[in-house]
Amino acid sequence: MSNQFKFTVLGSGSALPKKDRFQAAHLLEVHNKLFLIDCGEGMQIQAFRLKYSLNRLGHIFISHLHADHCLGLIGLISSLGMTGHYTNIEIHSAPELEKLLKPQLDFFCQELGFEVIFHPFNPRKKEIIFEDRTLIVKTLPLKHRVPTCGFIFEEKPKERHLIPEMIDAFNIPIKERALIKKGKDFITEEGEIIENKRLTKEPSPSKKFVYCSDTAFLPKIVPDVENADCLFHEATFLEEETLRAKKTYHSTAKQAATIALEGNVKKLIIGHFSSRYPSIDPIVDEAKSIFPYTIAAKDGLQICF
Amino acid sequence: MSNQFKFTVLGSGSALPKKDRFQAAHLLEVHNKLFLIDCGEGMQIQAFRLKYSLNRLGHIFISHLHADHCLGLIGLISSLGMTGHYTNIEIHSAPELEKLLKPQLDFFCQELGFEVIFHPFNPRKKEIIFEDRTLIVKTLPLKHRVPTCGFIFEEKPKERHLIPEMIDAFNIPIKERALIKKGKDFITEEGEIIENKRLTKEPSPSKKFVYCSDTAFLPKIVPDVENADCLFHEATFLEEETLRAKKTYHSTAKQAATIALEGNVKKLIIGHFSSRYPSIDPIVDEAKSIFPYTIAAKDGLQICF
Repeated sequence: MSNQFKFTVLGSGSALPKKDRFQAAHLLEVHNKLFLIDCGEGMQIQAFRLKYSLNRLGHIFISHLHADHCLGLIGLISSLGMTGHYTNIEIHSAPELEKLLKPQLDFFCQELGFEVIFHPFNPRKKEIIFEDRTLIVKTLPLKHRVPTCGFIFEEKPKERHLIPEMIDAFNIPIKERALIKKGKDFITEEGEIIENKRLTKEPSPSKKFVYCSDTAFLPKIVPDVENADCLFHEATFLEEETLRAKKTYHSTAKQAATIALEGNVKKLIIGHFSSRYPSIDPIVDEAKSIFPYTIAAKDGLQICF
Repeated sequence: MSNQFKFTVLGSGSALPKKDRFQAAHLLEVHNKLFLIDCGEGMQIQAFRLKYSLNRLGHIFISHLHADHCLGLIGLISSLGMTGHYTNIEIHSAPELEKLLKPQLDFFCQELGFEVIFHPFNPRKKEIIFEDRTLIVKTLPLKHRVPTCGFIFEEKPKERHLIPEMIDAFNIPIKERALIKKGKDFITEEGEIIENKRLTKEPSPSKKFVYCSDTAFLPKIVPDVENADCLFHEATFLEEETLRAKKTYHSTAKQAATIALEGNVKKLIIGHFSSRYPSIDPIVDEAKSIFPYTIAAKDGLQICF
């Protein structure tokens, strides 16, 4: 099982697509599971282009119900149905989505080899919306024109690493090892207590990825993004458009970088660029002037961490 | 006013898009009016890519209600709303479409500067669904898994051309000329009847374009496509897949070419290619072996006639 997170940008544009920037859609691969974050129109086309197999896709997280973040869902599900997909598709979103999609699902997506299951969340509160053996996904309420949530993907605390030489030296039976990985001390047949820290090494740190789009500048999320290995934050506008950003509840590049800096994240990916900019270089420069480890999203970009 | 028809392929693929073939969508420009024929997912992206201005778009014709022919509508309308479009969008389709789109239109496409008007047609009968001063659009019922219509775009009979020398010789007043263009004779002040054919030349022939997708082989449409200046006919499969074509109610390249040949059309465009073919060369070769003037659709292709 790979320990890396792999984040793939399928669409780095915003409300209006451009020829080289589709609308918001991102894949996140964690522990061999594949998650989709937002699903703008043409998401399936981008996946085909990047030859990205969607076999393992199960859970989809929709940040908010604007057209550019969810209109690709029906086409995706329809095509998955035609390509023999069999994993259930579970959609996490604000509650209204089910009512909006259901008529089209019933009409266009008959005879699917899987179920489409809706998991509504309350976009106004923080909650755990997905959990498996190794990963937790939480919502992070943002500030946009409609109820919107970011998502925090966080590995659960990992087990300690056994030190093979010590395990051999104390001849520790296999059945004991699972508990020792969890931090338990070992007691020898003679009753001697061997402290766990002699037998194990610190586990690798748990990874954290935070996705924030779309949102106005929202400094109160800094504690939530804190120490993230990677933060995706929208940067629709340049700082010179602060007023427009405020009015439309979007962020500027400088604001995105400020969140990254104050949150002490390891790297920042900015995206959701307004179609008004012929080049995004000034946006990236602006963010880098605040937070140097900034990467600009572009369609097809893959980042591992 | 241009007398040419300009047909643009935005999507030449079929049910599953490929990296270079979006789903079905086509623009037809006639007499400075812009029509959209089918609207698969990503249609708006292709229009942006081709820098095709949609300002003049008013009428949309949807052949049938399969996902790959209509899922681009909401995204298109949403984006038109954001770009200040003000011409009403009138959608001609089978009746169910309105009920399928309405909830999403109401939710995602608020504050449009234009109305979205649905004109349902009965896909089982031939009828005139659009008419203006110079053009008529008629439905052409096809044979597919769901009710499906092709569309016939036909110029109305044109006016005769005045022969300037004769108009001068008989000193025909301007107010008489409109009637003479329509075929009326001229009576001089002395009461002499000047036959129309001495004053005018034959009008240019009226042009005709026929769109047939999706459909099983349907020889009974030959009289409807007869003498068309251009026929678009789907050619999803190769002849070696005749059984699959029959089962899925699609056509082979040979069948499409046979319709073109028997209908004595001037040129044939084939499209809607199955994603199973790595190259469409064999499909084109097969069609050309029956009907030499065959052109293969590809995304971005523009044909004037």
